[in-house]
Amino acid sequence: METPILDTINSPADLKTLALPELTQLATEIRTVLLNKVSQTGGHVGPNLGVVELTIAFHTIFNSPIDKVVWDVSHQSYTHKILTGRKQAWLDPDHYDDVSGYTAPEESPHDYFNIGHTSTSIALATGMAVARDLQHQSGNVMAVIGDGSLSGGLALEGLNTAATLTSNLIILVNDNGMSIAEDHGGLYTNLKQLRESNGQAKNNLFKAMGLDYRYVADGNDLATMLTAFKDIKDIDHPVVLHVHTEKGRGYAPAIANKEAFHWHVPFELATGESLHPDTSESYNDTIHATLETELTELHTPITAITAAIPGAYDLKRFGRNHPERYFDVGIAEQESISFAAGQAQQGLRPIVFHSGTFLQRAYDQLSHDLGINKLPVTIMVTGGNISAGDPTHQGTFDIAMLSNIPGLTYLAATTKEELAAMMHWALHQNAGPVAIRVPGNGVHSAPLTDFDVTRMAQIHAGQQVALLGVGSLLPLAETVQKQLAKQQVNASVYAPRNLSALDKDTLTQLLADHQLVVTLEEASLSGGFGEKIASFYGNTDMHVLNFGAAKRFNDRETSAELWQEAKLTPEQLVAEISKNLH
Amino acid sequence: METPILDTINSPADLKTLALPELTQLATEIRTVLLNKVSQTGGHVGPNLGVVELTIAFHTIFNSPIDKVVWDVSHQSYTHKILTGRKQAWLDPDHYDDVSGYTAPEESPHDYFNIGHTSTSIALATGMAVARDLQHQSGNVMAVIGDGSLSGGLALEGLNTAATLTSNLIILVNDNGMSIAEDHGGLYTNLKQLRESNGQAKNNLFKAMGLDYRYVADGNDLATMLTAFKDIKDIDHPVVLHVHTEKGRGYAPAIANKEAFHWHVPFELATGESLHPDTSESYNDTIHATLETELTELHTPITAITAAIPGAYDLKRFGRNHPERYFDVGIAEQESISFAAGQAQQGLRPIVFHSGTFLQRAYDQLSHDLGINKLPVTIMVTGGNISAGDPTHQGTFDIAMLSNIPGLTYLAATTKEELAAMMHWALHQNAGPVAIRVPGNGVHSAPLTDFDVTRMAQIHAGQQVALLGVGSLLPLAETVQKQLAKQQVNASVYAPRNLSALDKDTLTQLLADHQLVVTLEEASLSGGFGEKIASFYGNTDMHVLNFGAAKRFNDRETSAELWQEAKLTPEQLVAEISKNLH
Repeated sequence: METPILDTINSPADLKTLALPELTQLATEIRTVLLNKVSQTGGHVGPNLGVVELTIAFHTIFNSPIDKVVWDVSHQSYTHKILTGRKQAWLDPDHYDDVSGYTAPEESPHDYFNIGHTSTSIALATGMAVARDLQHQSGNVMAVIGDGSLSGGLALEGLNTAATLTSNLIILVNDNGMSIAEDHGGLYTNLKQLRESNGQAKNNLFKAMGLDYRYVADGNDLATMLTAFKDIKDIDHPVVLHVHTEKGRGYAPAIANKEAFHWHVPFELATGESLHPDTSESYNDTIHATLETELTELHTPITAITAAIPGAYDLKRFGRNHPERYFDVGIAEQESISFAAGQAQQGLRPIVFHSGTFLQRAYDQLSHDLGINKLPVTIMVTGGNISAGDPTHQGTFDIAMLSNIPGLTYLAATTKEELAAMMHWALHQNAGPVAIRVPGNGVHSAPLTDFDVTRMAQIHAGQQVALLGVGSLLPLAETVQKQLAKQQVNASVYAPRNLSALDKDTLTQLLADHQLVVTLEEASLSGGFGEKIASFYGNTDMHVLNFGAAKRFNDRETSAELWQEAKLTPEQLVAEISKNLH
Repeated sequence: METPILDTINSPADLKTLALPELTQLATEIRTVLLNKVSQTGGHVGPNLGVVELTIAFHTIFNSPIDKVVWDVSHQSYTHKILTGRKQAWLDPDHYDDVSGYTAPEESPHDYFNIGHTSTSIALATGMAVARDLQHQSGNVMAVIGDGSLSGGLALEGLNTAATLTSNLIILVNDNGMSIAEDHGGLYTNLKQLRESNGQAKNNLFKAMGLDYRYVADGNDLATMLTAFKDIKDIDHPVVLHVHTEKGRGYAPAIANKEAFHWHVPFELATGESLHPDTSESYNDTIHATLETELTELHTPITAITAAIPGAYDLKRFGRNHPERYFDVGIAEQESISFAAGQAQQGLRPIVFHSGTFLQRAYDQLSHDLGINKLPVTIMVTGGNISAGDPTHQGTFDIAMLSNIPGLTYLAATTKEELAAMMHWALHQNAGPVAIRVPGNGVHSAPLTDFDVTRMAQIHAGQQVALLGVGSLLPLAETVQKQLAKQQVNASVYAPRNLSALDKDTLTQLLADHQLVVTLEEASLSGGFGEKIASFYGNTDMHVLNFGAAKRFNDRETSAELWQEAKLTPEQLVAEISKNLH
């Protein structure tokens, strides 16, 4: 892999002396190293290939970090990282893990925020611009936001506030035209009109929001982008620079299959084929089979709603078979819940498919629209686990978020049989919203005997110690039970299906012949299930030990380190339990 | 109070036979009864006076509840309630409390949702329209949303999704032009352009969002509104009906002072003067004095940000003195936090002024933008209390929401001295965001001795029992301590200042000579402070009793009933504690 130009670039300053042919060559080299690494490690492919030229142009024309760029979601910041002193993380496999997949202030003075959720960049940049002005500083502030992120309410709130600014602010809308195919909403029709009219369409969302507006037809042409930035540098008011780019630019498989290559597992560079295709059974199979049963056999008036993550649940499968019952509202988590509320109030049984981290955006809608109104909306929740990964996508906060909202029932499934049963139950009750935590630990299976969401499932009857293994941690509880048995401790094992309401009968019964209750949850302990158990037994002689994740954001630990820290290994648990038996 | 026409109206059907003069007379009568009641009880004044005609016109032209109207925030639904069988709640003082101040499905089949937060109506109505279509039903679905609610991200997400519908949906934008004076954002410039051009302005946010659009210049003219609704009834696609109305219409004091009369305490009808003006000391005095000290003496680069509730903190006082440092982003809670994040990242010390219930909208921004990025933004939180009122504004969920977010410190003040100290501390630390719970129980004062946010404040040294009174409940803890003393129980009293991190040293010391720890918090127990204390002591012999609000939404109980239910009276607490001492 020859990278003669890139070899000379150690900071944005090194770009300033390059002529257009060299910059163009640099773009080619960067695409090569991007693809080389991401094909081995996995990561965001299409978004990064699309912005190579505009990133080079930014760092050539502007003077980062005096001039500042905020990357929305920041999953498209690889080229930015390469140009701002972090290229070794792409050139040297030993340094692949040196940088995160998102902007990170701890890595570089050219980054300002850890960002992994969408639609924040305009608000953040507007705040930075205000700070610049109040402190009598200079420099440009630019937000780069993809078309997909624009539908998020915060992005639109950001446009509204940005228009009140009377000083420099550049909002680069990186429009790769992805969202229109999916009909994610009216604003995408407008972006299409603007693209097709070279920015001249009469209807213009940005002008209607009170913002100046410029259009760039080919954001992958370096000369064009250099000129566009030259023209706009030091502008004295907020402006939207609407830039048309191609997602996946320069890599045929990523262009041919833009959605699959948005984020991709490791793949063969020549063909784009996954290196280790996942053929294992998935809970999605259970979910889809349940949807079909409900719709075709039970005639339940279900709908399926996603906020731009159909892939996580393979939802397009449902959409192909039942297009009139499938809704992708785009990146708009609040909308996904309130839209479902409206459907449920009028007799449908909507199911909203979410990941816990993005569902945080809809916290108020879960409480105000669903909880207070007791609307029977079902919410599937994935990603609830303790694992390595960016803190912006951390999956340990869903229990504290969901289990404390009145009127909402949060269930944790342990097997595919239980997952299906919980979905059926949710779709045929009328008490209110039900969220279901899809286990993240591989598909488990066990016959379902005494299914009752108000009761903990007794998995093993014992005495002295009771192990309460929430959802994905039931197998761990069972392992610990077996190891304790070797020490002549016959522990009970329960699966607490319902994280929103305690099974007080069973808990009370345990007082008779148990002295220690141990809770295991793959989530932050703070505000979670274990604390509720501790409070229940607070004024009794029952001792309680809560195990789960610490209340903190991950900081590049490995999964093994995180589980160790949480003491969620059989050895640690057996030791902790043993020393506390008396 | 003569109401000859209203006397004949018991349901919308009774409107259908009335001619225009009678309907006009009805509008006058309704204004009279609205003002008569609200001047005695307090409530939303301006919003209801503005929509009398459009509400009468809706119920005359459409056939509710086959045709459905969803009122955004629903604080403007009084006329709707009067016309749909609930007029006694305005005509007869004995029935004043029969209806809530918001739409309520339990009151009437003409209401569909309990709504008290803004910006949800378009999403809800779109969901209802989808349900109508999938179930092959008929009827119009209309959302009525005020201009102020439009800046909320969910409203804009709703417009985006609404444009994808290919069937009937009416979005009535009730534009009383309030927001423009405040410069709440670019979309208000557009609304102004549309008003001034009779709907013909080239820039049109709604058309840019892909929606059909019509303009009504005088929404307080009944004939005009009747025609507008006739023209639009059974329309086969989504349409925005932009209606210009006057907030406070028909009542001079409400027109002269639109903001003060948005919601008003009881007032003298003739003059608009408050009947019982509140002249007592307020924590706002403490807050403003602290802001001035920070800015003028300490030269701290503070800014003040609100999302459309300046009145709750009398923030315009700050805005008048420091206009360049004051930002009202309009109804856009997400924006308020992310905008502050951008400011803080660049060296400012923003303070965001919120009420707990609306802050729910910004849950993800608190975690993702502030918590992960450790940005020193200060957030003031009011409304944290157990009191009667609509469940949509319930103030018991802030502790569970805020105290479980990593990196965010949630402090509960007990006195004005402590409140000021917490603000100073928050503005001079750099560890991350700090939220401060402003006590809701009247101004208390006490010398500040050992201020340390990592430690509980020891208020009284005792043994056997420790009372932990969070924020506003410290006085209750002190009362209980005094009553226990009469029974020869010398209880300790502590104020746990920090709800995010336990003072483990002090809690551990209590193990030596205490057998029972009692926590008191004016908030939902679920996910709150007490459960953390119970978990801390879970594997010890310390007994713990947690007192606070039940995890549920209020259902028209009185405050006294709620406090009784929570056992937060001295008598109940003394009894509970006494019976558990051994």
